[in-house]
Amino acid sequence: MRRRLAPVRKKKVGAAPGTLVHIGEKKGEKARITLISYGPERLEEGALRSPSEARETGAGGVSWLNLDGLHDVPLIEAFGKKYGLHPLVLEDILNTGGRPKLEDYGDYLFLVAKMLFHDEEAGEIRTEQVSFVLGSGYVLSFQEEAGDVFNGVRERLRSGKGRIRRMGPDYLAYALLDAIVDSYFVILEKIGDQLERMEDELIVEATPESLQKIHAFKREMILLRKSVWPLREVLAALQRDETPLVTEATGVFLRDVYDHTIQVVDTVETFRDLIGGLLDLYLSSISNRMNEVMKVLTIIATIFIPLTFLAGIYGMNFEHIPELKWRWGYAAFWLAVVVLGGAMFGFFRRKKWL
Amino acid sequence: MRRRLAPVRKKKVGAAPGTLVHIGEKKGEKARITLISYGPERLEEGALRSPSEARETGAGGVSWLNLDGLHDVPLIEAFGKKYGLHPLVLEDILNTGGRPKLEDYGDYLFLVAKMLFHDEEAGEIRTEQVSFVLGSGYVLSFQEEAGDVFNGVRERLRSGKGRIRRMGPDYLAYALLDAIVDSYFVILEKIGDQLERMEDELIVEATPESLQKIHAFKREMILLRKSVWPLREVLAALQRDETPLVTEATGVFLRDVYDHTIQVVDTVETFRDLIGGLLDLYLSSISNRMNEVMKVLTIIATIFIPLTFLAGIYGMNFEHIPELKWRWGYAAFWLAVVVLGGAMFGFFRRKKWL
Amino acid sequence: MRRRLAPVRKKKVGAAPGTLVHIGEKKGEKARITLISYGPERLEEGALRSPSEARETGAGGVSWLNLDGLHDVPLIEAFGKKYGLHPLVLEDILNTGGRPKLEDYGDYLFLVAKMLFHDEEAGEIRTEQVSFVLGSGYVLSFQEEAGDVFNGVRERLRSGKGRIRRMGPDYLAYALLDAIVDSYFVILEKIGDQLERMEDELIVEATPESLQKIHAFKREMILLRKSVWPLREVLAALQRDETPLVTEATGVFLRDVYDHTIQVVDTVETFRDLIGGLLDLYLSSISNRMNEVMKVLTIIATIFIPLTFLAGIYGMNFEHIPELKWRWGYAAFWLAVVVLGGAMFGFFRRKKWL
Amino acid sequence: MRRRLAPVRKKKVGAAPGTLVHIGEKKGEKARITLISYGPERLEEGALRSPSEARETGAGGVSWLNLDGLHDVPLIEAFGKKYGLHPLVLEDILNTGGRPKLEDYGDYLFLVAKMLFHDEEAGEIRTEQVSFVLGSGYVLSFQEEAGDVFNGVRERLRSGKGRIRRMGPDYLAYALLDAIVDSYFVILEKIGDQLERMEDELIVEATPESLQKIHAFKREMILLRKSVWPLREVLAALQRDETPLVTEATGVFLRDVYDHTIQVVDTVETFRDLIGGLLDLYLSSISNRMNEVMKVLTIIATIFIPLTFLAGIYGMNFEHIPELKWRWGYAAFWLAVVVLGGAMFGFFRRKKWL
Amino acid sequence: MRRRLAPVRKKKVGAAPGTLVHIGEKKGEKARITLISYGPERLEEGALRSPSEARETGAGGVSWLNLDGLHDVPLIEAFGKKYGLHPLVLEDILNTGGRPKLEDYGDYLFLVAKMLFHDEEAGEIRTEQVSFVLGSGYVLSFQEEAGDVFNGVRERLRSGKGRIRRMGPDYLAYALLDAIVDSYFVILEKIGDQLERMEDELIVEATPESLQKIHAFKREMILLRKSVWPLREVLAALQRDETPLVTEATGVFLRDVYDHTIQVVDTVETFRDLIGGLLDLYLSSISNRMNEVMKVLTIIATIFIPLTFLAGIYGMNFEHIPELKWRWGYAAFWLAVVVLGGAMFGFFRRKKWL
Repeated sequence: MRRRLAPVRKKKVGAAPGTLVHIGEKKGEKARITLISYGPERLEEGALRSPSEARETGAGGVSWLNLDGLHDVPLIEAFGKKYGLHPLVLEDILNTGGRPKLEDYGDYLFLVAKMLFHDEEAGEIRTEQVSFVLGSGYVLSFQEEAGDVFNGVRERLRSGKGRIRRMGPDYLAYALLDAIVDSYFVILEKIGDQLERMEDELIVEATPESLQKIHAFKREMILLRKSVWPLREVLAALQRDETPLVTEATGVFLRDVYDHTIQVVDTVETFRDLIGGLLDLYLSSISNRMNEVMKVLTIIATIFIPLTFLAGIYGMNFEHIPELKWRWGYAAFWLAVVVLGGAMFGFFRRKKWL
Repeated sequence: MRRRLAPVRKKKVGAAPGTLVHIGEKKGEKARITLISYGPERLEEGALRSPSEARETGAGGVSWLNLDGLHDVPLIEAFGKKYGLHPLVLEDILNTGGRPKLEDYGDYLFLVAKMLFHDEEAGEIRTEQVSFVLGSGYVLSFQEEAGDVFNGVRERLRSGKGRIRRMGPDYLAYALLDAIVDSYFVILEKIGDQLERMEDELIVEATPESLQKIHAFKREMILLRKSVWPLREVLAALQRDETPLVTEATGVFLRDVYDHTIQVVDTVETFRDLIGGLLDLYLSSISNRMNEVMKVLTIIATIFIPLTFLAGIYGMNFEHIPELKWRWGYAAFWLAVVVLGGAMFGFFRRKKWL
Repeated sequence: MRRRLAPVRKKKVGAAPGTLVHIGEKKGEKARITLISYGPERLEEGALRSPSEARETGAGGVSWLNLDGLHDVPLIEAFGKKYGLHPLVLEDILNTGGRPKLEDYGDYLFLVAKMLFHDEEAGEIRTEQVSFVLGSGYVLSFQEEAGDVFNGVRERLRSGKGRIRRMGPDYLAYALLDAIVDSYFVILEKIGDQLERMEDELIVEATPESLQKIHAFKREMILLRKSVWPLREVLAALQRDETPLVTEATGVFLRDVYDHTIQVVDTVETFRDLIGGLLDLYLSSISNRMNEVMKVLTIIATIFIPLTFLAGIYGMNFEHIPELKWRWGYAAFWLAVVVLGGAMFGFFRRKKWL
Repeated sequence: MRRRLAPVRKKKVGAAPGTLVHIGEKKGEKARITLISYGPERLEEGALRSPSEARETGAGGVSWLNLDGLHDVPLIEAFGKKYGLHPLVLEDILNTGGRPKLEDYGDYLFLVAKMLFHDEEAGEIRTEQVSFVLGSGYVLSFQEEAGDVFNGVRERLRSGKGRIRRMGPDYLAYALLDAIVDSYFVILEKIGDQLERMEDELIVEATPESLQKIHAFKREMILLRKSVWPLREVLAALQRDETPLVTEATGVFLRDVYDHTIQVVDTVETFRDLIGGLLDLYLSSISNRMNEVMKVLTIIATIFIPLTFLAGIYGMNFEHIPELKWRWGYAAFWLAVVVLGGAMFGFFRRKKWL
Repeated sequence: MRRRLAPVRKKKVGAAPGTLVHIGEKKGEKARITLISYGPERLEEGALRSPSEARETGAGGVSWLNLDGLHDVPLIEAFGKKYGLHPLVLEDILNTGGRPKLEDYGDYLFLVAKMLFHDEEAGEIRTEQVSFVLGSGYVLSFQEEAGDVFNGVRERLRSGKGRIRRMGPDYLAYALLDAIVDSYFVILEKIGDQLERMEDELIVEATPESLQKIHAFKREMILLRKSVWPLREVLAALQRDETPLVTEATGVFLRDVYDHTIQVVDTVETFRDLIGGLLDLYLSSISNRMNEVMKVLTIIATIFIPLTFLAGIYGMNFEHIPELKWRWGYAAFWLAVVVLGGAMFGFFRRKKWL
């Protein structure tokens, strides 16, 4: 199914803000909470039935709770209760049609981003919303369904290599955002390749299907841009705003991921420009085709209409048409045909129509 | 009737500012004032004949006076007198062609917004202006006619659930604005669905009516944007400006509704882009159709004009046309016709016109 | 005569700044100064021969000197002398091709605005520049010719109703500006109506004249925008800048007129968008017409060219054409014509050309 | 020769900054220095061979050194030495492909502007760069060749009228800039007239040459804009920046010339919009022409192709065509022709093709 | 090979930030480090095998280490170790698909820029990334492969002329950036010349290849802009930011190179505008051609179709066609042909089709 153009709102019109209703297709699968709790020297992994099962991590420890599946509203409420989240945060977690954003609630930061997947079957890009809550000692992540781009991060946590286990929850949040932005590059590369192929096709031959493809590209770009553009602002705010939840050591990494986001935004804009160029190529190709059709018609008509007139003349039944009685009349007629045809041919050559 | 493009000004050119004249179609119905007065523990509802009937609410109580119908100018003046409103505020309440705005008059805030309804019969969007006055202990709302999107808010007030009864008039104003913005999503969803249907139609077949529909969409977007865009600024100002009338507790909710407004603005812009794409689809579809017409013409002409010339030759009355006397002349003519026709057919195949 | 596109500069290239030369068509009429001097309790009206005749108004009194006709340069100089105006101010008053602007000269504010009139005869909008000098206790207004939009203000002054007589010269300046902005709405309404009529016309039938009309609209909008856009900045500066010449009481009224200017600017932008849409409608209408012409041509040619070929065959003079001798040959020919024609008709039906 | 699109850089790639190379066509004429030294009561004029000949002016005196011709690099270096100019300033003076700019070097201001001339012969606008150095007690001006727009300023200096002799070097610099901006209005007026003529032509008849003219206009505007747009910023900075070199008394005059620059920029933008409209007019005019051609073709073909078929029928040689033997057969044929032709005529009338 | 549209990301999705992987085509050549160490009085040049071989320069001395070839990852790591570079810096050096940027790491500045080369063979612009690290007493530069635009700088260092040897590493960094920006002008000049040639070609004759060339130009501009635009911000930041690494003496030079970057950006924008104009020229040229084809067709058809009808009439076999028996019938027929043809000719003349 094609992605919907209009965002679906999170609650019934006029319902109280903070009313929790899950918007989206309910999956049959059960919602699943996984916990990774780690410190410089240790790592525990496990599945929880409820957020309340998560124990306090000692000083310097970090807990990462990840929820796959948003249809289990009471579970979300349990998260809200355990971590003291504002009702509007819970509402935004459930509303998967939201816009990437960052909100500072003092005790915790709330962050919404979009994962992008290339759906090979449907041949289009799919979006999945991920919400993060970054608090003191913990990161919560909420995904619509199982399957994400965080396996690299998990691997690094497990192996204990690099700096990830030595740093705080803000670095973990950064690492997750970085993984999301990295995955955008994969998507962009794919689209870039498709655009180039399209360009080559258009130069060879434009078909009515070409326009539909160009239109689909344009649509894709419009929607991609909607996911990426606000993320830029989110990351800029994350760097700029002073919050004790983000340490200076992480700041330089945030600058890096911000940089990548700008690169993504840039590329999306470049693609939009290029798609505009493809449309010009297409329209011009169509118009060239039309021109060629008209030329064929004109050449045929211009050569044969006068000749047919000539034949018509000698098909007339006037009693006194002296040419008809000439011995070489018929041969002279053919001569005239050849001369006239040759003249036309020369004319078309000069006009560069042949 | 179509909505007017130009705003109608509120007074005769050169009349004194603050001259109260109702601009708009006067409804036969009587203007109606309803009062909801509530506190954490109590709620009274009633209809008033005049704003002066509203009693003082005690400390912590909130009065919400809603007026349906703006044609009763003396009633508006009574409101002005009772709540000490500036003449320009009254003028703006009556001028239903205004622009969403926020004005801080010190003792009260004046706010203009637009409700949008989808008029199923006319198949277009209708706008209704709502003006709010948020003062200490009261909210006044002024609507052009009966019927609004506030029933959810009324229900919440009556049931006493949620935080609405425990909070002040600023929260009530927020709740009303939120209900308005929520209703925009309903409109956007409808338009989004129509756009998608249009897109599918255009890919199958473009008719001259398609353009009119696209033009109507464009017009709708232009006017929708005019209602929504300034509201964004209004809500940004409401958050940013420091006024004792808006408490901090309400601030976070205002941020939320501001967020939704941005989402609406975003979607309107996206729709504008998509409508631009539809126009391209339409124009290209028309041009493809033309191309096809030209091809049919060219094929027919290219095949038959030369053949007609051939027939014309043997219709000539020269005395010495040897072919006419051949036994197999007629058969040879048909052979030539078949060969020539086949060559043309091959030519068109190669050109991919067939 | 059409308005000129390029502004005419106020002095000879290289002449000293402050050289006073009236640029514009000199009217035969004599320049006329009218004085309205008023206080809360009194009003005097009269015509002066020279600004020097204006007596000092006592405390709280306001003098409004209005000059109709700028060709009398010595008179302008007399104003400059009497009120201590900077030579550049006098230059700007005379240069009727200027841009709306606000300049603070300390002792007085200098303000340029444009009145717009709908010239019924020429069917286009005419611009007239009005310059204001707002000083302590006086307002000077300079107009190109007699006839303005200030009669409402004069009436209010004379009647003494409302607050105008009780307030200072800043309020008078506001009232004059408000009258000007009000008159823009009249123009916009007229243009809006014309645009709607145009739209309806285009849907029914586009003529080559339509494009000229659309072009004229576009031109009008470009020039209208040039008058209105800078006025917005002028009014924003008037509100924002701190000058003792503008009292706080007048500030709220300035906010109101600023608001109206934004509304005018908004509407002009909306009209520009709509005119862009009209062009699309026009072009598409033209292209639909072309399509229809091509269809007629193709139908006729496709039906009759093959049939003519058939007739041509049996017009040949081969000695052995067996069909010619058949008893029902001619009838069979007609049968073939009907069958072929019917097949074509079916083909066109399927293509939806008929 | 057409102006070059790309700027020519001032030195060999990689050469040291401050390497002085004159870029531009070397004129055969010798470079010429003229000095005007003045105070309130006196004026001396003369030609110098070298800037070192200029004597110190006493307190309150101003020296204006003008150089015509930039190909004499040692002379430029002599200026640099005498007035202590930074090597980059000298480089910028010689690089005539630069952009209008203002640089504050503490002791002096460096300013680049563009004079525009309408080259009657080539029918296009020519640019000449002028650089100014405004120091304490002196103004230096550097021009590519003899001939400028400063004669008015010289005249005013000589005559001693107005305030120019009583004010400092900053006022002189202003007067020179004002003369340059004034000359832009002359150019704009010419272009405006040409645009209007073009518009009238296009409404009457579009030729392929029209497009080339429109394209030339567009090109002119793009290049004009490049000269004018940065000047606006230069003048804004000159007003805004606090430098002891610019006195307050001159400030109000700078505001005036800034104002004029905005007016020029505005007009250039307006012209760009109008040129866009001309292109629409042109394209539509072409398309109308095509439409007319198609109509003529269709009318002729639609009338005569069926009639030719009819004539073809009665040219057939079937033995049994009863109509051929009718006494009134031929007359009936003509009747059919007239009736059919009349029907076609009616059809075209209804379609409004005739 | 055409440049890729999408940036290639620097690491596997989800890999740890700071993971060093060289992205780009690995060259067979060995990476090469060259060192230029200089002071006001001395200069040493040499090739190093490892950055650790570089000795400390005394006070006032500057070391410039240049690396050609990024595929030797351990070498990059050695640089990182020796100069204490942040892992993200190393990552960015290796990621040649990055965006020009400036990052202040306290002890050193990290700067990314793009060199542009015109690849004569492929007829397109090639990009090479150069990264700079500016520290106290040293400049590091990292290039993808041998060959750069810095030979001028090296020459100046060796000759000891000018101020380069007397100034610090910040001036060296400026000199290198200046050389890069200078090389942009060479590219722009080439493109400018090509655009002008294209323009002349289009006015004479547009071919389908023209559009492909225009499209290639547009593509080039889009990609060029991506390289240049962010450099502007980099240089603005370099001027604006206060860092002890950039001295005031160098500041004025940075302003100069910033100025040149703006000029480059301006020119790129101008070229984009001009390319838009070329597309209009092309489309209109195509449409003019089509018009001409249609005119030829219409002239031929309009002249001969009626004449053929006439000939058809007298080819009919009615028994009673009186004209056929007239003595001058055939001559009269020819007269009619000439008169009709002449009338048509006159008609076309009037329509200006001939």
